[in-house]
Amino acid sequence: MRDVQNDLDERGINIQKVGIKDFDIPLKIRRKNLSNRTVNAKARVTVSLPENYKGTHMSRFVEVLTDWQNKDVLGSDLRGCITQIAEKLSAKDGELQLDFKYFINKTAPVSKLVSPLGYDCMFKSILLNHNTENEKYKFILGVKVPVTTLCPCSKEISEYGAHNQRAMVSVNICYDTSKHHIWIEDLIQEIESCASSSIYSLLKREDEKFVTEQAYNNPKFVEDVLRDIVTILRKNEIIKSFEIECDSMESIHNHSAWAYQKEIK
Amino acid sequence: MRDVQNDLDERGINIQKVGIKDFDIPLKIRRKNLSNRTVNAKARVTVSLPENYKGTHMSRFVEVLTDWQNKDVLGSDLRGCITQIAEKLSAKDGELQLDFKYFINKTAPVSKLVSPLGYDCMFKSILLNHNTENEKYKFILGVKVPVTTLCPCSKEISEYGAHNQRAMVSVNICYDTSKHHIWIEDLIQEIESCASSSIYSLLKREDEKFVTEQAYNNPKFVEDVLRDIVTILRKNEIIKSFEIECDSMESIHNHSAWAYQKEIK
Amino acid sequence: MRDVQNDLDERGINIQKVGIKDFDIPLKIRRKNLSNRTVNAKARVTVSLPENYKGTHMSRFVEVLTDWQNKDVLGSDLRGCITQIAEKLSAKDGELQLDFKYFINKTAPVSKLVSPLGYDCMFKSILLNHNTENEKYKFILGVKVPVTTLCPCSKEISEYGAHNQRAMVSVNICYDTSKHHIWIEDLIQEIESCASSSIYSLLKREDEKFVTEQAYNNPKFVEDVLRDIVTILRKNEIIKSFEIECDSMESIHNHSAWAYQKEIK
Amino acid sequence: MRDVQNDLDERGINIQKVGIKDFDIPLKIRRKNLSNRTVNAKARVTVSLPENYKGTHMSRFVEVLTDWQNKDVLGSDLRGCITQIAEKLSAKDGELQLDFKYFINKTAPVSKLVSPLGYDCMFKSILLNHNTENEKYKFILGVKVPVTTLCPCSKEISEYGAHNQRAMVSVNICYDTSKHHIWIEDLIQEIESCASSSIYSLLKREDEKFVTEQAYNNPKFVEDVLRDIVTILRKNEIIKSFEIECDSMESIHNHSAWAYQKEIK
Repeated sequence: MRDVQNDLDERGINIQKVGIKDFDIPLKIRRKNLSNRTVNAKARVTVSLPENYKGTHMSRFVEVLTDWQNKDVLGSDLRGCITQIAEKLSAKDGELQLDFKYFINKTAPVSKLVSPLGYDCMFKSILLNHNTENEKYKFILGVKVPVTTLCPCSKEISEYGAHNQRAMVSVNICYDTSKHHIWIEDLIQEIESCASSSIYSLLKREDEKFVTEQAYNNPKFVEDVLRDIVTILRKNEIIKSFEIECDSMESIHNHSAWAYQKEIK
Repeated sequence: MRDVQNDLDERGINIQKVGIKDFDIPLKIRRKNLSNRTVNAKARVTVSLPENYKGTHMSRFVEVLTDWQNKDVLGSDLRGCITQIAEKLSAKDGELQLDFKYFINKTAPVSKLVSPLGYDCMFKSILLNHNTENEKYKFILGVKVPVTTLCPCSKEISEYGAHNQRAMVSVNICYDTSKHHIWIEDLIQEIESCASSSIYSLLKREDEKFVTEQAYNNPKFVEDVLRDIVTILRKNEIIKSFEIECDSMESIHNHSAWAYQKEIK
Repeated sequence: MRDVQNDLDERGINIQKVGIKDFDIPLKIRRKNLSNRTVNAKARVTVSLPENYKGTHMSRFVEVLTDWQNKDVLGSDLRGCITQIAEKLSAKDGELQLDFKYFINKTAPVSKLVSPLGYDCMFKSILLNHNTENEKYKFILGVKVPVTTLCPCSKEISEYGAHNQRAMVSVNICYDTSKHHIWIEDLIQEIESCASSSIYSLLKREDEKFVTEQAYNNPKFVEDVLRDIVTILRKNEIIKSFEIECDSMESIHNHSAWAYQKEIK
Repeated sequence: MRDVQNDLDERGINIQKVGIKDFDIPLKIRRKNLSNRTVNAKARVTVSLPENYKGTHMSRFVEVLTDWQNKDVLGSDLRGCITQIAEKLSAKDGELQLDFKYFINKTAPVSKLVSPLGYDCMFKSILLNHNTENEKYKFILGVKVPVTTLCPCSKEISEYGAHNQRAMVSVNICYDTSKHHIWIEDLIQEIESCASSSIYSLLKREDEKFVTEQAYNNPKFVEDVLRDIVTILRKNEIIKSFEIECDSMESIHNHSAWAYQKEIK
């Protein structure tokens, strides 16, 4: 059978990224202080394609990911996966993004009852100039953290009460996985500390009183949440770059208050 | 060219609904006290198919809807559209559902500033036993109304503050369009009156103070919002059946509090 | 602390369903011929609420589900879960719906290579009139199966080729879990046999030739897919009712061809 | 009433983007050779916030957008809108993104019947260093174009037939709106010419034969579609930068084939 993908292409265009998207795959992820857990990842995997090739070989991406479904994956291990993909496809550059729901057991502030909370997380591995002297590797860890924001303006101007709402804080950080390790659990905890209050799945009445009063005592605009996270991430010497999004689904509007920051140190 | 759809089918199965789904079409909708407005509708249109026919003719659905894009549509006019579809396809039953965003100008409670708020609305037309003595027609009007809910339990047990959040209230009502007319504007206003507070696009500081205090003075569980709407809809003699969903996106959790009721009078 | 939920309500309205929605929870699911697998479920759990109570106790739903996350769940076991919820909330009726991605290893038709394919599945447990002589229990198993449909009309009228596309077939079945068991794996296989071709994650060239030719030899309208599934489900004496949706994302349009059937035996 | 937003902030962090997101607003858009059309836009509008201010004034974004809903907007007019926002908020930088569904009447290839097709489009306006000598303005036009792709490999290796599917091609282009104008209609037409076949809402049998055979005669990988669009956009001297995404929802898989390119000239 002829391999059409290997045909000569004469348009003279190197393709930056080509591969598969929206591929569901179960993966075993290592957790902090807990046994491994299988997550359902959605993968996007691509390679660069030189100008003279008509097409890439899509089935090879699936083959490599299928191999990786039974390993115990830590973010840092993904360099092995994207390297294997780049080699199997004779590519210079490769990129692997995995989006998955990750559960953390959270303890309610007063009753101390424990229940799981699911966070949308992401691993992204970028390999550039593989097998050359300019080879570079970049790993990005992403978390989406639901929190409570309570409006300082509403509290200030109202005789009682203050509007508050769920906000989604998305943080992507880049750090050197060959030297350091940052647990999803730890990154999430730092982000939660910057909100008016943290969010829980299970709250008894004594907990609900606690989080209600805590949020009221701790009013924050999206600007405040963002700036407090920026302050923490700037101080953290391990982190080389970061991107923050704070999306507060206002309870008094049908739109969000939104803030964004991206910094490379 | 052979018409495969007209082939004889021998499996002996009458199909209840077959047609097109996720078809985008602009439609001119009549508004209360305002000029007509073009909305972007997403349509699902189906007919019944007798057992002896292999397939329906999908292009005819598109032809009829394309004809209707320039008319000034009121919910009641849709009987004409679904009847035309049933006839063009020689079908006994037909169903047309249109989902669209509908804008209403809302006036802020204190500053009286006006701004548009977009509501997801629905028209559904069901025609049964067309051209027989048992012909029946049913029209359903649906609205999704974002509101504020403030938790009575949180207010009661906390020394200050109370968690509140955006909630989405979905209401579908069925009434006889040959005798009555219910404006989207009026249905939405009744639903908004059942929440802790109504929601606005544009609120200046004096308005924000007003809605914050109003919500605090007016705490409601999803159960309360639901029961207040049930009370109104039961009393309304024009309405023959209704379905209510109240989805409160709790600010202290990552899940919703949810209540549901369906009644046929 | 006062329990506001237990306050007397005087509106005289029994609420049909109230509880929590969009609650993420990991669950261990039993698989056919394979070890258990943790899935990420999204839960909606509700109970009925008598007219004299102001509110239900939302945290108890989370408590019961948190307990169940480490059990090995088979659809039939969920009667235990919804019964526990109904009892903990002193409710007559209860309903539990779990939506989750479920992976099955599929073998490519020629190369025999194996790769996982993720299917969206659902368990729904409905308990009515608990602790009365009219107690009833209903279990619904739902699967969403991506398949290929190839258009018989396009094949017939064209000199070569035929348009084909991915279609999503959703099937919900109801059967008596106290007497029978139906594996997700088996239900999916039956549905896949009704399409122009089955879908795979990993196909080498010899497999791609096979599925291309198989689909071309096996053209099917959405009406055909639906009727073939109806035929199988009508014959299956274990199944008491079913609901089928076939949504074919036409490659020549930006809308879907769609067919629907619901039958109670 | 105190203006909390104007409070002094001492964290020393300039915020890059802060404003509102997911704000629905109707807008009148100018069309090529046709009367204006109201579209339903979803807006994200932001400004930069200097380090010494605690917060921005969210209601002013809504005020300006509400003013703009009755104007006849061309992409180039949005410089006026984002400038007005930057001035009302005393900001140096501002960004406005509008996402909306835009309908174009398409003519079937053989029957010449006309029907509307809705495309997801985007206007993005970026204003930098406003009121300084380094003021810069950038406008980005985005379109998402559904097309048919037919797999060259499947055609080559199979005795008959070839798998094909709907693909979504997203293209963002940047050009100087002070000197040139590019109609949405023209950009879409160029993209459609790069696919195996264009997509239509209304196709009679003679049209279906035409598009089926055209796609079969014109097989394209995502790589081919991407490269043909790159070739066109590189040649177009008006365009200063572009970003292309081709997402082909494979009919034989449950995942997409995907290609991406971004170039700044």
